[in-house]
Parts: sequence; C-alpha cells; structure tokens
Amino acid sequence: MNIKRQPQYNTKSSTSKELDFLISALSERNPFMDFPAFLDWFEKRRSAHLFNVEKISFEDLDQWSFGTSTGNLRHASGKFFTIEGILVETNVGPISQWSQPIINQPEIGILGILTKKFNGVLHFLMQAKMEPGNIGFVQLGPTVQATRSNFTQVHLGKAPPYLEYFFNKSSSNILIDTLQSEQGGRFLFKRNRNIIIETSREVELLDDYCWLTLAQIHKLISKDNMVNMDARSVLASIPFAASELKNLDSINLNLALKKLDAVNASKIPTDMESFHSRVIKSAVSSRGVLHDSGEVISWFTELKVCYELNVERIPLKFVKGWLKTENQIYHEKKKYFSVIAIAVQASNREVKKWTQPLIKPQGSGLIAYITKNINGILHFLIQAKVEPGNFDIIEMAPTVQCITDSYEQDQPEERPVFLDYILNISPEKIRSSTMQSEEGGRFYKESNRCLIVEADDDFSLEVPKNFIWLTLSQIKEFIKYNNYVNVEGRCLLSSLRFI
Amino acid sequence: MNIKRQPQYNTKSSTSKELDFLISALSERNPFMDFPAFLDWFEKRRSAHLFNVEKISFEDLDQWSFGTSTGNLRHASGKFFTIEGILVETNVGPISQWSQPIINQPEIGILGILTKKFNGVLHFLMQAKMEPGNIGFVQLGPTVQATRSNFTQVHLGKAPPYLEYFFNKSSSNILIDTLQSEQGGRFLFKRNRNIIIETSREVELLDDYCWLTLAQIHKLISKDNMVNMDARSVLASIPFAASELKNLDSINLNLALKKLDAVNASKIPTDMESFHSRVIKSAVSSRGVLHDSGEVISWFTELKVCYELNVERIPLKFVKGWLKTENQIYHEKKKYFSVIAIAVQASNREVKKWTQPLIKPQGSGLIAYITKNINGILHFLIQAKVEPGNFDIIEMAPTVQCITDSYEQDQPEERPVFLDYILNISPEKIRSSTMQSEEGGRFYKESNRCLIVEADDDFSLEVPKNFIWLTLSQIKEFIKYNNYVNVEGRCLLSSLRFI
Repeated sequence: MNIKRQPQYNTKSSTSKELDFLISALSERNPFMDFPAFLDWFEKRRSAHLFNVEKISFEDLDQWSFGTSTGNLRHASGKFFTIEGILVETNVGPISQWSQPIINQPEIGILGILTKKFNGVLHFLMQAKMEPGNIGFVQLGPTVQATRSNFTQVHLGKAPPYLEYFFNKSSSNILIDTLQSEQGGRFLFKRNRNIIIETSREVELLDDYCWLTLAQIHKLISKDNMVNMDARSVLASIPFAASELKNLDSINLNLALKKLDAVNASKIPTDMESFHSRVIKSAVSSRGVLHDSGEVISWFTELKVCYELNVERIPLKFVKGWLKTENQIYHEKKKYFSVIAIAVQASNREVKKWTQPLIKPQGSGLIAYITKNINGILHFLIQAKVEPGNFDIIEMAPTVQCITDSYEQDQPEERPVFLDYILNISPEKIRSSTMQSEEGGRFYKESNRCLIVEADDDFSLEVPKNFIWLTLSQIKEFIKYNNYVNVEGRCLLSSLRFI
Repeated sequence: MNIKRQPQYNTKSSTSKELDFLISALSERNPFMDFPAFLDWFEKRRSAHLFNVEKISFEDLDQWSFGTSTGNLRHASGKFFTIEGILVETNVGPISQWSQPIINQPEIGILGILTKKFNGVLHFLMQAKMEPGNIGFVQLGPTVQATRSNFTQVHLGKAPPYLEYFFNKSSSNILIDTLQSEQGGRFLFKRNRNIIIETSREVELLDDYCWLTLAQIHKLISKDNMVNMDARSVLASIPFAASELKNLDSINLNLALKKLDAVNASKIPTDMESFHSRVIKSAVSSRGVLHDSGEVISWFTELKVCYELNVERIPLKFVKGWLKTENQIYHEKKKYFSVIAIAVQASNREVKKWTQPLIKPQGSGLIAYITKNINGILHFLIQAKVEPGNFDIIEMAPTVQCITDSYEQDQPEERPVFLDYILNISPEKIRSSTMQSEEGGRFYKESNRCLIVEADDDFSLEVPKNFIWLTLSQIKEFIKYNNYVNVEGRCLLSSLRFI
C-alpha cells in the first residue's frame, strides 16, 4: 500500500486568517514604503528594462504555425496554448449558433501571492511584471505567475523566483487555494490555481518585487492599468467575514471595527454612512442577506437546467465568418476581437526575445456592478452569464459585462439589460471608475472600463430572472467553491477600497 | 427590456429547514402508517402490477439501433440516452490509457421529493416505483423521477403525477435544489436536479404513493434493495446542522437534543455514546473538525492540479478490447460490465411495453466508509476519486469503492487502499451493512455491498494524500455546492440512521 503522509498543511483557522486580511485591508502602515515611495519605485522599475513589442506577420512567427489539416495556430512543442475553433449552440441570447476562434490552454497555471506579517500586518509580495500586451508594459502582478510550462521548463528559461515557497508547505500556511476560471468568451475551460500563502521564513527582496499592504494595493487598483488581472483575480478571492464579526448586529459591528481601528491605527471611515464603510460591512457581516445560500443555489440550478449550451471543438479553418490575412484573423463585421502576431524583446524576462500570437480586442468593454443598500446592507446585482468557454454553462458575472461598441447600432430592446442605465448614470452615483487591463500575456492592450455604481433607494428590487442581489461576503463564499464567479466578476471586486 | 419578476421562491430560512429535517429524522410518529403497516402496503404494491423483463437480442430492440458510421447504440428519436465510446488518458492509477463504452445522457433529469408537515413533523411522499433493472422490480423512489424526455412527452406517455408541484413555486417552499452527478464510471457528465419542496396545499394520495418520516425511510434503507438510488441520492443532500445547534459544545448539544426529544417524542438514543448519537452529533455540529473548509478545498485543488484526465468521445465501434455479439457487448476479460438488451412489460407504467438497452455489471461492488471518532466527533474517511465521466476530474468518494471481483487476482499492493482492511474487518466494527441497488432504469440487477464501519482508536490518522477525514456536516456542506461528492459517496450517507 502506497501510504504517504498527509501533507503538513498548517492551514490557519479561518478566523484568524480572515481577521488578518481585514486588518491589512484597513492599514496603510508599511515599514518598507508608503504610497508615494511605491509610485517612485514603480516608475523606476518601469524604466529599468528595455521592452519592445512589434506586430509581425504570422509567417514571421518562430516555432508557431498553422496546422495543415486543422488550421489551428500552435507552438512546435505542443505547449503554451493553441488558437482553435469552437462551434457554439445555445438557447440563451439573440444568437443561437455561431463559431469563433478560441484559446485552448488546458494546463492549470499558478497565480500565487506570498505574504508575511510585519508589525502584525500582513504584507503581500507583489511583482513589477512585464507582459507584451500590457498597456505600459509593466504592471503589478502576483509574486508568482507561472504556467505549468514555466515550472516544467519547457521554454528552457529559469524557474520563477519564490516558486519554491509554494511547493515547500512545511514552512508556509496556506491562506487561500482555489481553482478559478478565466475569460469564458476567449478561453476554453481555462483555469488557474489562485493561491495565497503566509511564510514565517526570511524572504529575500529581489529587484522587481515589493511588499504592500492590502489597503495599499486596493488604492493602486483605483488607478488605471496599474495592477494586472492575475493579481486582481487572486486578491478578489480574499474573504473578510471573520467569525468573531460576522454575526454582530450593526451597533456591535461598528464598535468592533472601531476597536480594530484603535489597535491597528487604520483609517476606517468615521462616517459610518460612507460607501467605504458600507463595503466593509457587506464584506464582513453575514446578516441582512436578501437570499440565503440555499436559495441562491436553487436560482443557479434552475438556470442551469433551463439554459442549453453545446460547445464543440472544431478546426480553426472551419470557423465561419472569420477571415485570415497574412497578419490577422478577424471577424467579417470587424466585431469582437482579432488574432495577431507579435515579436517581443524584454531584457528582464527569462527568455529575452520571442514571438507569439495575441488576441486584440476590436472595441472597448464595459464591466459594471450596480450596488444597492438593502436591509441595511450593501448588495451587488449579479448576472448569471452564459459564456462558451465556461466550465459549467453559467457563472456569476457583474451586472453588465459587454463590448460596448458591439451594441451601438442595436435597438434598445436588444441591448444588454442595465447597459443604458450604466451609460446614463449621473456622476454622483459612481463609487469607482477605472480602466483595467486584461491579461497581457494573451491580450493586446485590452483595457476595459470598470465601474461600481450605487443605485438610489427607488431602484427596483425586482430584476430579470437571470439576476440576483448578493452581499459581498456571499459572493466571496461562492468564489471559495470554484467556478461560481467569473473572472470579470471577481476582478471588479478587487477595486473595492475599505479605506 | 425583458424585465421579469424574480420568481417567488419562498425559500425557508436554513435554520428552520435544517431543524425540520432533524426532527423528521428523529421521529417515527406517522399518522398514516407505522413501519409494519408500511411493509404490508409495500408488499401489496409489489404484487399489484404485472411486470416482465426478458433479455433479447440487439436486433429485436424496437426503435433502438447501432449507427452505421459510429456503431453507437441510440434511439430513433435521438432522445433518452446513447451508448457511445470514450478514450481515457490519465496519470492516476495503474492503467494510463483505455477505451470503454459509456452512457451519454446529457439531459438534466429531475429527482424530486414532495414533503408536507403533519403534526409538526415533515413527511416525505415516496413512490413504489417499478424499473426494469430493479431487484424485485419495485423499489421505493422519490415522488417524481423524470427525465426531460418524460416531461416534454417524447415517449407519448402521461406526465408524471405531482410534477406540477415542482413547477408551481408560489405554493411551495424549496428546501433543497442542487445539481448532482451520477456514476462517473458509467455516465458521461450525467447530472440530475435533486430537489425537495414543502407544500402547504392539500395533496391527493395516489395508489403507489405513501407518506413517510425521514426516520422511517432511514430504517428502510437499512434493509436490502428497498429504497432506490434516486431516492437515496436526494435524501443524502439533506443538511441537519441547524444554526441553533451547530456551535453548541457537547454538553449543551446533548441538552438541546434531549429537549427536542421531549417535545417531539423522538427516540434519541439515551446512551449518548452509541453510534447513532455519534452520527447525530457529526451531522449537527460544526465543532471539532480536523480540517477546516479552506483546507479541504486546498487539498482538492492540489489533487486537481496534479491529476490529469483526458476524456475523448469516440465512436462505440472504435472502443478496443470490447466484443460485440448478437445480444451483448462485453470486455474481453469478462470484467467491468456488459451492455445487454431487454424487453419490458409493466402494467402500471406510462408506456406498458418497451425495449431498451441496459448495463449489466460483471461482478459485485463494494462501497464502504471507514469512520473514526476524532476530537470527540465522528469523521468519515473520504477518497478523492478520478472517474472518466466526472465533470471535473475528481469527486469525493467513499473510502472504498470498487468492483471486488476485478481485484481478486491482483497482488495485495495493486489492490485499492483499505480494501483488505474492509474485507477482513471484524463484525463488531460494522455499523451498517446492506445490499443497495443502482438505478434500475439503466442497470440490470446491479446491487452493491454497502458498509459503514467504525475503526478503533488506534487506526492511523495519517492517510494517503488522496484521502481526508471529514465530519458528516462538512460532507453535507460540500454536497450543497454540487459536483463535490459522487453518487456512491452521497447515497451511502443515506443509510445512516439517527434512531
């Protein structure tokens, strides 16, 4: 019998873990760098290396080529990813059948953040990370961002720094460790391992890395195109509903938060009626929810039963309505996205020069949550969204998630629900508005408008059957169980500041 | 804008729901029939109708035939199910590649139980249900057991009784409503909607139906081949961890249960050290767990990252190592299962006569949980099991789940972990031992030995890396989130009696 020892997980009790996250989200105290110092450092990292990205023709791709029988675009090693086709049939939405190119990357990658406590506050080791498709080339990423190809050394580069901390569990506590989906409109069943660990070991601080508190990172996400999608995805899975706090009534919760404030010198908004304090309460409390978890699962079950989605993998050359030239594959109506090829030079990457395909969006996207105070607690309006690359038909998505340009010509009744509400919202209802980048290793300068708005009290509680109101702590609970909340829905949560 | 009203769910708060289930599991008071009366009634139902099942040749199947290009066995309507092939590649287990026949039934079916309170105790409307593959033809099933073909009337029969209660949500409370997987070794991605609703309306009691408390049903499951797999699957998803009870310490929990006892005249074992009372405590309490939920999810994530499973659908005629005669398709080593054809006569079914393929097992199976008292609370030893039809690589399975005969010739080190422990266990450690049938609509007289054993204190806590110890309330929580616990793991839980 091949009996092995159960791995030594040293998982912290969820109580202390969630409280630690909360304290970090409430604290800007950082012995290494305050916010202006970080911005200086980051500018230096951006200019420390030489980057160059050039569009090339498919013919000039090195090691990448179109398969003769399938037309699929793939790497000679068979690794990384391939651009293939899918044929989609569904009974949801205005179009019941279509085919499209899609990225097939079945490998599970690791997106990992190493954390460590300094002065009792959890700090996150973040990386100034270059990706060829990034706006500004360098954005702030997780400590480790590795495909399986990375760590099995397919591309003959060096192993990513700090990866060993994630393999050596005896000296680390695992705080978060879940599988999460990526863009279901672009990837076929892609998932990453989102992992946060806490170490008590000494950590050497390398050139492109810095320690930040969660409050500092939240503040950075309120700037445009600074924190990359991988980092935002991992951060979005952080729960805050510490068991000591989650069942407290409003008055006692306020007292407990003020006590935290006093002990940790955080800056919890003194005006307990501010949006930041409503966000804290929605993240921490389990009271006042409009629908309990059994009801939410029933809502999801009903939609999965009603919605049909058949996705068949087909050769890229059989995809209809898409045209291929020497340097791009694009939709005949110039909608959606195109596939392009680039040559990259980067002085600080494991491999200094390479070529690869990228996905280039044709229009800009809009990703938005409508929030509303219900039963004295902030609720988020969630949409159950069908996307062809989804693992299980639907995932929970933001209230609005669309390519805005695609709908410009459409009649109002054909436009996504709540799109016009968001487009016409008055500025004083906007709680957060930023441009955020999609993953720069696969997408070329894709940046979407990300909005969080707070609706008036007279905004109707009654919503279409594929929408539901959830508190922040409920959404976090669903994120924990994998494949419930899509990457857009997760990442947008990471722009919520507590202070 | 296509704004519809949010459905009127009337979902009960989980508190009262879980307490209602607990009271029913502790009560044999039934104004309709006590246990002996039920057994009388059931014998009468078994003999009330004429059933006949005969093995026939594939050629004599009506409307079913083998596709000329694929060799797939399918119905002329394209509905019900097809027998196809899969090619499996995995890095788990002794065999890294094989092909096999599999049932493809992508439609989501409904397994629904209607409940109603009588004298304050929840009663479950159960059906004496005939299936052609059943041992004894008739077993006790859920109120409604319907494929989508059933309720869309593909086979031109009548709509199943009581189905309307499940569609008319305004007069019902939904107690449970989740999607659950079926046998991953036999079905490709099959799932059913497991749903329990409570009605306050009058319910007409039809001939083949009866009201039973949960305690009565649990007692029936301790008899061989009485309660069908569909019913056991639905019942297994019932949670008991009422929020009033789950955080109580041992002494206060005992007091609370005694109070329930006094009020409801249940028969909670007075010896609080008995196995039944350990089961109640493990189902109700959230204290004393060896691993918290974050840790369990991390364990599951790690295995999903390490385990590879590629399943490709192939035509049945390309399956290797399987032979087809005029009346069966079987494996060349006479292992696993065979595909046969039958003709059925049933006087009480919607359609009186039909033919269909069935799966016939080649050997008998063994399904067993090892339990152990840890931290003063009963834990179940769970296995993360790879099965080709799984939705997501692995699901949580019982400690042992195998076809015993397949392993008889194997060397001890090749046999499943813990199989020999179970086969050699001394009788005084066996807490439940029954024969239970698989779904008689797809499987021909398949009945497996189901065991729950309680290991000694010296049984090692250290287990192979694909095993983990969970309490009953933890397993129930994972069942709630879908595709975590396989059908064998779920159904075996339903044989746990509280009194």
